[in-house]
Amino acid sequence: MAFDSPIFADRAAILDRYRQARAQSLALADPLSPEDWMLQSMPDASPVKWNLAHTSWFFETFILKKFAPDYSEFHERFGYLFNSYYNQIGKMHPRPERGLLSRPTASDIRAYRDHVDGAMERLLDNASDDLATQIAPLVALGVAHEEQHQELLLTDIKHALSQNSLLPAAYDRPEADDHSAPVALKFEEMEGGLCEIGWNGDGFAFDNEGPRHKVFLQPFKLANRLVTNAEFIEFIEDGAYENPALWLSDAWTLIQNEGWRAPLYWRRSEGAWRRFALSGEEEIDPHAPVSHISQYEAAAFAYWAGARLPTEFEWEAAASLFPVAGAFCDSSGPGEPKRADGTARIAQLFGDCWEWTASAYVAYPKYAPPAGAVGEYNGKFMSGQMVLRGGSCATPVGHIRVSYRNFFPANARWQFSGVRLAKDCD
Amino acid sequence: MAFDSPIFADRAAILDRYRQARAQSLALADPLSPEDWMLQSMPDASPVKWNLAHTSWFFETFILKKFAPDYSEFHERFGYLFNSYYNQIGKMHPRPERGLLSRPTASDIRAYRDHVDGAMERLLDNASDDLATQIAPLVALGVAHEEQHQELLLTDIKHALSQNSLLPAAYDRPEADDHSAPVALKFEEMEGGLCEIGWNGDGFAFDNEGPRHKVFLQPFKLANRLVTNAEFIEFIEDGAYENPALWLSDAWTLIQNEGWRAPLYWRRSEGAWRRFALSGEEEIDPHAPVSHISQYEAAAFAYWAGARLPTEFEWEAAASLFPVAGAFCDSSGPGEPKRADGTARIAQLFGDCWEWTASAYVAYPKYAPPAGAVGEYNGKFMSGQMVLRGGSCATPVGHIRVSYRNFFPANARWQFSGVRLAKDCD
Amino acid sequence: MAFDSPIFADRAAILDRYRQARAQSLALADPLSPEDWMLQSMPDASPVKWNLAHTSWFFETFILKKFAPDYSEFHERFGYLFNSYYNQIGKMHPRPERGLLSRPTASDIRAYRDHVDGAMERLLDNASDDLATQIAPLVALGVAHEEQHQELLLTDIKHALSQNSLLPAAYDRPEADDHSAPVALKFEEMEGGLCEIGWNGDGFAFDNEGPRHKVFLQPFKLANRLVTNAEFIEFIEDGAYENPALWLSDAWTLIQNEGWRAPLYWRRSEGAWRRFALSGEEEIDPHAPVSHISQYEAAAFAYWAGARLPTEFEWEAAASLFPVAGAFCDSSGPGEPKRADGTARIAQLFGDCWEWTASAYVAYPKYAPPAGAVGEYNGKFMSGQMVLRGGSCATPVGHIRVSYRNFFPANARWQFSGVRLAKDCD
Amino acid sequence: MAFDSPIFADRAAILDRYRQARAQSLALADPLSPEDWMLQSMPDASPVKWNLAHTSWFFETFILKKFAPDYSEFHERFGYLFNSYYNQIGKMHPRPERGLLSRPTASDIRAYRDHVDGAMERLLDNASDDLATQIAPLVALGVAHEEQHQELLLTDIKHALSQNSLLPAAYDRPEADDHSAPVALKFEEMEGGLCEIGWNGDGFAFDNEGPRHKVFLQPFKLANRLVTNAEFIEFIEDGAYENPALWLSDAWTLIQNEGWRAPLYWRRSEGAWRRFALSGEEEIDPHAPVSHISQYEAAAFAYWAGARLPTEFEWEAAASLFPVAGAFCDSSGPGEPKRADGTARIAQLFGDCWEWTASAYVAYPKYAPPAGAVGEYNGKFMSGQMVLRGGSCATPVGHIRVSYRNFFPANARWQFSGVRLAKDCD
Repeated sequence: MAFDSPIFADRAAILDRYRQARAQSLALADPLSPEDWMLQSMPDASPVKWNLAHTSWFFETFILKKFAPDYSEFHERFGYLFNSYYNQIGKMHPRPERGLLSRPTASDIRAYRDHVDGAMERLLDNASDDLATQIAPLVALGVAHEEQHQELLLTDIKHALSQNSLLPAAYDRPEADDHSAPVALKFEEMEGGLCEIGWNGDGFAFDNEGPRHKVFLQPFKLANRLVTNAEFIEFIEDGAYENPALWLSDAWTLIQNEGWRAPLYWRRSEGAWRRFALSGEEEIDPHAPVSHISQYEAAAFAYWAGARLPTEFEWEAAASLFPVAGAFCDSSGPGEPKRADGTARIAQLFGDCWEWTASAYVAYPKYAPPAGAVGEYNGKFMSGQMVLRGGSCATPVGHIRVSYRNFFPANARWQFSGVRLAKDCD
Repeated sequence: MAFDSPIFADRAAILDRYRQARAQSLALADPLSPEDWMLQSMPDASPVKWNLAHTSWFFETFILKKFAPDYSEFHERFGYLFNSYYNQIGKMHPRPERGLLSRPTASDIRAYRDHVDGAMERLLDNASDDLATQIAPLVALGVAHEEQHQELLLTDIKHALSQNSLLPAAYDRPEADDHSAPVALKFEEMEGGLCEIGWNGDGFAFDNEGPRHKVFLQPFKLANRLVTNAEFIEFIEDGAYENPALWLSDAWTLIQNEGWRAPLYWRRSEGAWRRFALSGEEEIDPHAPVSHISQYEAAAFAYWAGARLPTEFEWEAAASLFPVAGAFCDSSGPGEPKRADGTARIAQLFGDCWEWTASAYVAYPKYAPPAGAVGEYNGKFMSGQMVLRGGSCATPVGHIRVSYRNFFPANARWQFSGVRLAKDCD
Repeated sequence: MAFDSPIFADRAAILDRYRQARAQSLALADPLSPEDWMLQSMPDASPVKWNLAHTSWFFETFILKKFAPDYSEFHERFGYLFNSYYNQIGKMHPRPERGLLSRPTASDIRAYRDHVDGAMERLLDNASDDLATQIAPLVALGVAHEEQHQELLLTDIKHALSQNSLLPAAYDRPEADDHSAPVALKFEEMEGGLCEIGWNGDGFAFDNEGPRHKVFLQPFKLANRLVTNAEFIEFIEDGAYENPALWLSDAWTLIQNEGWRAPLYWRRSEGAWRRFALSGEEEIDPHAPVSHISQYEAAAFAYWAGARLPTEFEWEAAASLFPVAGAFCDSSGPGEPKRADGTARIAQLFGDCWEWTASAYVAYPKYAPPAGAVGEYNGKFMSGQMVLRGGSCATPVGHIRVSYRNFFPANARWQFSGVRLAKDCD
Repeated sequence: MAFDSPIFADRAAILDRYRQARAQSLALADPLSPEDWMLQSMPDASPVKWNLAHTSWFFETFILKKFAPDYSEFHERFGYLFNSYYNQIGKMHPRPERGLLSRPTASDIRAYRDHVDGAMERLLDNASDDLATQIAPLVALGVAHEEQHQELLLTDIKHALSQNSLLPAAYDRPEADDHSAPVALKFEEMEGGLCEIGWNGDGFAFDNEGPRHKVFLQPFKLANRLVTNAEFIEFIEDGAYENPALWLSDAWTLIQNEGWRAPLYWRRSEGAWRRFALSGEEEIDPHAPVSHISQYEAAAFAYWAGARLPTEFEWEAAASLFPVAGAFCDSSGPGEPKRADGTARIAQLFGDCWEWTASAYVAYPKYAPPAGAVGEYNGKFMSGQMVLRGGSCATPVGHIRVSYRNFFPANARWQFSGVRLAKDCD
């Protein structure tokens, strides 16, 4: 994050943002029962309860314990239970066993949140101007972190409920989307050359989005929208999952071992594809963007289609020409990716689905993580993962920047991840 | 079970027993929250919720669906969710994923129990004498099955809560036991010879307890009480867990791989041994029987002590001289194994701890499982397990017979399992 | 083994037996190349080279180092490399990595054998009468051990070569057997009662064969021959491997996970069953006994056939009425199990195939292993295994007694293991 | 590879290169016994025998079967046994079981090589000019492939022999190196800017080295030599392997799970570090470059030293200023990495150790793999691996180019892999 920039105009703005983020977490969790809050269906995912507690622990550990002089810890073991991966803070509860925490209960976790929120309000109310300036970037980081866990809360509960053969709905079904065909697929030319990439210094950003630096890009072409479910079904029906020539070596091994034959959450039933959504199982909308695919599937699809994935630099160079607007998660609750309409030259760059890129997640030139435990936030994951860009329908509105770099292993599918095609110019 | 014996005097007796057993299950579950009901800490253990639903499914499947003409199933998927291992009934939810069932909720499960209980009461009220006679052994089996799951409910929640570093109590701590030293260890001679072993045909018994048959026993000696915690600590302090000469080959491999250095739930803290109990962590009572040990540890202890484990036949021959009485689980709730007092020539044969024997769990001569799916109850597990005898402090009072054969793999430790020594006569 | 019995008449007899056993090991190994000698295809099996060295290590460790005053060890690291499982002797090379020992080479191993043989000859030549008496039982044990590894050498190389898609022959194909139909299957009644079981004290036996003791047997019936391949094919074609009602619970899980659909080494090719033999792949002889089945398959077959497996006591009581004669491995080299001819009331009790019993491998009453490391030979494996009786076509002629107890886990298939049916009398 | 460039001046040159490469493979294998040729100590490594056969299969499959009209296959199953990963050619022997192939024997493999060599000579002798032109790039590819397997033969046999507690030498110890201290560590400034990266079109190169393209580099500094063993020991002694703050997240998990505390092949003995070499175990030369480290260790060392790893582009930009010369493997046989002498401004860029870079192995802009199965050579591995540059002491002399891109997973250590530091300019 950026420690030296005017992240918030004033204290009221800080508090406002803090309250809004904290309230939105509970708004997403409230429709779910204390039993739903317990679910952990794989080590990569966490229970709702844990997501809610961990974000509170973050404010407690990095702000309250350091800057609120008379702050009293809510519970002496919570530091152990709700530390995620900050080795410099201390030992932690094993990640795969987060689902075994029936205690603290859901109401304990609500009390913990209230305790932290009260202390944060008092701290911000009473802080000197100097202290407020010092704290502001950490609050911004905590808010961004809270928002990331809002998205994880949705993707994690979706994964957990999908394991239940009752196929229960987490949320009410939103109003029906427009199901007409999207704009035709078209490739837009981009000129490339020496481009500036990375956070430009205005407001909050994660450390991994900078430093801003030059890269040289060949001219390239970028698809005007995401790949649709109908297009992905063509790929399936062409025997793609049985054809080794389309796949990276690791991908082919994986689909053999795991028996993958479609995106995650898809199921063939009575001659049609159905998929599990946050509002229960439903027929697949052929015109919506395909989601819940791995980078392996994105790359294989692109190869099959005579195209390729864009690099994260190509994506950013193109996306910086457009406003950061699209289908995100707002207070009306989570939806699913929506069809592209015809108004933008390049549509769906933001929201709908995270877009897999061809770029491995590595540091930008001159990148250095912040000192101390908070520096474990992003830098230590710069290995073995691929970059995704643009946010999804589960990303909180206001959370994304054009320089935003998300990252997951190439085999991850439980995020709302899709694919946009790119091509070389001749 | 025995299909041809007068299990119940009359319908009132049947209903009475049914109601008592069903009520006791809820009495054990009530102090626990819906979140506790979710916990599954290993594939061998099941959530409280699942235990409560599965026993209802048993009555629904083997009695109501067959004998109650207008019975309407509570939920069409519950047959899939709550079948444990009856392959002849149909497919089932994967055992290791029972902890992922946030739905049906705790209150759904209560409603399911009410639905089944109402139907069972109506069936028994309205049954012809012929039908009542036909149903009685199945009700007896269902009640015995319900009681087995009461014990599992306790051992499973104990295991689950022990994983939580908060070391939470499931139940209030019972009144303090007498902590004075138990009677001195003494070996009582038994004469052996041709003995009758197995269920003698009076009342209900599981199929695996018969047929009654002759075995020839050499004269032998049996310890007058269970091995205590203090005696087991001597074994530990003598370096037993580091000495391969004391262990079976499989056991030695296991303790190397798992790092076992004490019974399950024991922890060394500030120079003393503590153990996790259903009422939270506490100091070890040196005079109480050691529990939560594997058959491997029981056998190694016996070898170290210059003794051996009794066979299940020796145990039964000796135990049949004594009344079936001891520290079981009654309506006052679960306790822990208690010290032996001095009144019985051979004490603690029933209750306190299941006693590991030297006998592998195999069929008695002329044993044949009942026809149909209900025959999967006991017979198909006659491989790779060892017999335990006598019940424990978590076994419902009234559940045990002298011919009762429990069975677990030699490495299992999450039951209240202990050890009684035996010796050959010269 | 029996330390106090007249195992050998004199020193010449000792030496003769020693030389014969040692020569036979090399006779089996000689047709195989140094590269074949390297193969280890699973942790349970060992390379030829290792089998040859380990048996030499046994004589070196338990006899030469203790009784030959000026014996000089062949190589200081061989104790580590060729100790199998004697924890009291010291640490050992990891079992699954025995196939990684290209050094010592095959010719080093031959030199090691020569070194040990020379020292053994000198020791026996020069020993006082007292010493000879003291050593004799250990030589007998070493010879029996050598013979066990001759059988393992055959089963292990068979398993290893079966992994090679070239399906290479280890040995020349022996002369064609008689392929006519065997005697019809018939059950012979045995009267049971109080029987004496176990080694009767005449000559060498392993410790686990005693002490001799009484058991009480119900009257029973025993099949007059082993189950044939043709009979086993009926079982397969009746859908046995798809029918959970026939199988023990562990067995059903295993055949689901491993995809078992036939005995080990069987392969369906162009509508017929073929099997891999030590002389390469060949068509199955329908009239020969089925071999390379697990105890699970033996038990399921018996259940399907309306019969059961005999206990080891039933087997011994019946077999003690017959001479120890049958198809063993002699100097003419290894064969495969042969069809039963019509002359014996109960045929094939010895040789052809090890016969799975219903008995778990546990200690006989008053059994105690010998003191010291040599006591690790049999006793520490008395857990989790089932008893097999009678020897096989790969067992050296002269190695078997009626009291001989072999043992393997219920899922083991790489030995020449088959099945004989038993039934209760009415 | 480059299909359109003048790779060989004439047929004589082609044949010469072919013969030289083929002879060198045997020269490396000849000092090893047929038993050594069998060893496979992990799935990533292959037996000597397999390496020798697979390279022959490559010429047979991609050249002889396609272009030699009357070529007769050496053995019909060798296509299955010695295909490595070319899914478009057909199914293949499982990689982890390559060590189970005692047949074909070592002499069969020599005969296979002779058969292929004879056919290759005849094909090249008799080819029309057109055909020779067509074949030349495939021969060049086959030769380069043969050379890669020469390096693997060395690293694989080193790994295999290191598992043997006899610590056997594969080769004679080479003449003693100069053990005096190397030049002092110094960072050389490089100016960066727009640079051309990738193969420049002259002679043979792998497909993944192109197309040549522009990248923009910030000014940077590059160390004048590789990191030494002495420097790496400082890192160890500073507690690096116990300090999570130095490591990538995946790396920290790995070193916890695997217990890494030093480079591969290092062993602490009597207060000093020793390491296993191709000529047996020896003391560590403090002044030689550290080798057999993972990219994780390279990155952690760099972070600890206040530096970073160079990108592959930085490395190539710098290395292109120097001749391709260094300590490679020539006909005098394999050595170990040698100390840097003082004559070059930047030393050891080629030979000694592969240098880990900060760059993930992904495709260059406009990269497309060749059509057909031969296109599986490099492209399908562009996922989850990191780039190494410059070759090692085990790389055949003449094999390396400045554009050469080697790639391994970040945790791989069995190659001769080391580390050169880089820094940003202020």
